[in-house]
Amino acid sequence: MNIKLSLHLIGTFLKFFGLLLLIPAICSLIYRDGDLHIFLLAAFLAGISGFLLETAFKGSKAIEVIDRKEAFFIAFLCWVVAGVFGAVPYLFVPALSNPIDAIFESISGFTTTGATVISDIESLPHGILFYRSFTQWLGGMGIVILGIAILPKLSVGGVQLMGSEAPGPVTEKLTPKIAETAKKLWFVYMVLSVSLIVLLSLSGMPVFDSIATSFSTLSTGGFSVNNSSIEGYNSSLIEAFVTFFMFLGGINFLLHYYFLSGKFSKFFKSSELKYYTIIVIVSIFLVSLDLWHTHYKGFFEALRYASFQVVSIISTTGFSSVNFDLWTQFSIFVLFTLMFIGACSGSTSGAIKVIRILIMIKKIFPREISHLIKPRVVQVLKVDKKAVSDEVISGVTSFILLYILIFIVSVLAILLVEDISIVGVLSACAASLGNVGPGFQEFGATQNYDFLTGFSKLWLSLLMLIGRLEIFTVLVIFSPMFWRK
Amino acid sequence: MNIKLSLHLIGTFLKFFGLLLLIPAICSLIYRDGDLHIFLLAAFLAGISGFLLETAFKGSKAIEVIDRKEAFFIAFLCWVVAGVFGAVPYLFVPALSNPIDAIFESISGFTTTGATVISDIESLPHGILFYRSFTQWLGGMGIVILGIAILPKLSVGGVQLMGSEAPGPVTEKLTPKIAETAKKLWFVYMVLSVSLIVLLSLSGMPVFDSIATSFSTLSTGGFSVNNSSIEGYNSSLIEAFVTFFMFLGGINFLLHYYFLSGKFSKFFKSSELKYYTIIVIVSIFLVSLDLWHTHYKGFFEALRYASFQVVSIISTTGFSSVNFDLWTQFSIFVLFTLMFIGACSGSTSGAIKVIRILIMIKKIFPREISHLIKPRVVQVLKVDKKAVSDEVISGVTSFILLYILIFIVSVLAILLVEDISIVGVLSACAASLGNVGPGFQEFGATQNYDFLTGFSKLWLSLLMLIGRLEIFTVLVIFSPMFWRK
Repeated sequence: MNIKLSLHLIGTFLKFFGLLLLIPAICSLIYRDGDLHIFLLAAFLAGISGFLLETAFKGSKAIEVIDRKEAFFIAFLCWVVAGVFGAVPYLFVPALSNPIDAIFESISGFTTTGATVISDIESLPHGILFYRSFTQWLGGMGIVILGIAILPKLSVGGVQLMGSEAPGPVTEKLTPKIAETAKKLWFVYMVLSVSLIVLLSLSGMPVFDSIATSFSTLSTGGFSVNNSSIEGYNSSLIEAFVTFFMFLGGINFLLHYYFLSGKFSKFFKSSELKYYTIIVIVSIFLVSLDLWHTHYKGFFEALRYASFQVVSIISTTGFSSVNFDLWTQFSIFVLFTLMFIGACSGSTSGAIKVIRILIMIKKIFPREISHLIKPRVVQVLKVDKKAVSDEVISGVTSFILLYILIFIVSVLAILLVEDISIVGVLSACAASLGNVGPGFQEFGATQNYDFLTGFSKLWLSLLMLIGRLEIFTVLVIFSPMFWRK
Repeated sequence: MNIKLSLHLIGTFLKFFGLLLLIPAICSLIYRDGDLHIFLLAAFLAGISGFLLETAFKGSKAIEVIDRKEAFFIAFLCWVVAGVFGAVPYLFVPALSNPIDAIFESISGFTTTGATVISDIESLPHGILFYRSFTQWLGGMGIVILGIAILPKLSVGGVQLMGSEAPGPVTEKLTPKIAETAKKLWFVYMVLSVSLIVLLSLSGMPVFDSIATSFSTLSTGGFSVNNSSIEGYNSSLIEAFVTFFMFLGGINFLLHYYFLSGKFSKFFKSSELKYYTIIVIVSIFLVSLDLWHTHYKGFFEALRYASFQVVSIISTTGFSSVNFDLWTQFSIFVLFTLMFIGACSGSTSGAIKVIRILIMIKKIFPREISHLIKPRVVQVLKVDKKAVSDEVISGVTSFILLYILIFIVSVLAILLVEDISIVGVLSACAASLGNVGPGFQEFGATQNYDFLTGFSKLWLSLLMLIGRLEIFTVLVIFSPMFWRK
């Protein structure tokens, strides 16, 4: 592995990351909230570190091909440095002055998890509030993909790098040039984000809140500028718009691009989108029926809250429009299950993703069953009329099993050091690994993660990174095989 | 599929099953508890039904080869008829007069689950108490395997039949003749059972209790003749013997046979046994450390209770020597995890089994990781120095994923109809599917399953059958593909 070249490129990324940190500085300048120096300092630190790295590891050859190992290494380290340098502004917030808290909030933002250690969010200055949602927006579509779109140098190893960051087992290319694809994805993302800002503003939400909420919605992040999340606006119209755009955030952005380019058939033929929609509708129906008699007067009131919460959880956003922790055990467990499923590959959502669930189920029924009855007949597994290779199937099953394994080990680790309920810990680990945000009981919609020990906060931060980079990118780095000659 | 031949053989099995029901009749006769007629009636019903089935479906050819489909069908139906005809004696017990309760208790026995709907066990007559433990003993090594050992007619389709009932992904044959293997396995099982009866009697346990306890221990069943399970004897010697034999019950009986035949190297070289032992030791160590300061005065007191409960749960027996529901959330979650792991393949235990966990982990770390770094190098997965085929690996991952899928769907189904805690339902479903028995909270060691609705009792009974027959045997029967021409 060419460590020199990797560190050189990470330096380039860090310089670029420093520039991004100037955007919240503009917000601080507009609102004169006195935090301008925070963002300038963070931008300076990132910029100068990037410059030093880039210069120190300047290679002899300008352009080289990046191989798999380097791609994993660069993608992983880009996310780590974004988490660490992105935590600098938080160090000046009283509630986050502990570096572990600052890093937790930073990683929770970039990974679009949306778990917070701050109890009084409304007391924060505008710059920091904007910055929290902005980190989610950057992390949603992917900071490395953004780098590929803008920096010609990073696009050298584009395909590999994108594969290490992009969510989903299969990466499709829109265009032969990877930088073009990255630009198009970011363009669609911006169009959708601006649309939601306009709609929310027209619905009566303050413009500042609309921008921050839109950033947290399309990125399926879930940070709100309101202590009681979307519930605080008490508007069914706002809830409806946010629900719809959380659902959109959970759809593959390649499909959005096809849709916006008028290729509707490509959009509607996707089986992943079909099953994502089916899971959403069935879950909303079950939860609405369950809550209709127990918690709400009419079916439509139940439907309103169920729709918002189901879409919020399956898209791994984590907004709330009601304290769902008071719901029945059945409805809570439906939400818990959705935390594991997640939305579509290539979207901004986290967790296992519908395509993997679909491939897993097709592998079991009919494939395994048919194999038991007629061992000699080999069935071809197809998704969208295309055969899925044994290699991809094997990768998908490994992914799901590893996801569950990491989840169980994490629950044991957190229970060992914390004195909290099993359901609480189950939900915290599922919500961190799936980049959802809030969980149940001690981690419910009205609670936060502040009371945890530093060990647990760091562990959950690692889970968020593992979840966002889809496990293997992180796991590969930590395997001895990776470092062997 | 030859349904006529299948039904004919099930008739033969049922006649034989009727004979087995005469054994508890002897117990009733000895203790003069007035239940003799119950067992005679049940034996008669099974015998006459078997005779009628056998006669009605007499085929033209006496000996035919049984194919895969018929093996699945026969194995599944043998277990269903054992569950149903085995429920007849319970109908005369006041606490079980509801047929659903009788079937729950019967299936819980034969599948060696050990979950009960009876609150006052000590009030039962001797015959019924003996019968409960006896059903577990029969189900432990397998009623179909017993049939193969004794009935020449059933040994026709021996290999296939045994594969449909025997626990574990790989079935090894001790001898070329399957009936010989079945006989040897049952012989080892008897030797171990008699040894424990002698040891328990010498430790001061009444002879009747020793017999019943031994039956429930070697079969890793967990039915006790005592309201407070093994805790009721309040003897550390008895606990030690039961712990050791529960551990033995969790070991592959082929290995026991090798050991008894002096082939010690074959016994000690098994990696499954090695990892089973490691998991047991690590779990005992963690739980002991955890409980040492919180629940018990000395480390050895913690070690005593931790050892018993860890072995009881991982072997899927379900005995208790203390109310473990009062333990810390960490220790409870360790037990919950062990409910899924189970012991060795080819043992009397249930759940996923160590060999499958081992194959899964070997598939993920080095194999999947190495594939990501060097896609062209294909690593061979080896267990006990033998290569595991891709077919077996694929079957193992499907099994584990399906196990988790059935578990989650069951939790949702039970929560929909019952108003109980999530942890309680999680434990009840894990304990039923893994053939463990008791769970936590509403299903803890001091509780029982009686308060559930009929729907939930039937659902959990089905889970026990699915768990005992290792999912696929049941799933195949219910797939439309099975019934297609």
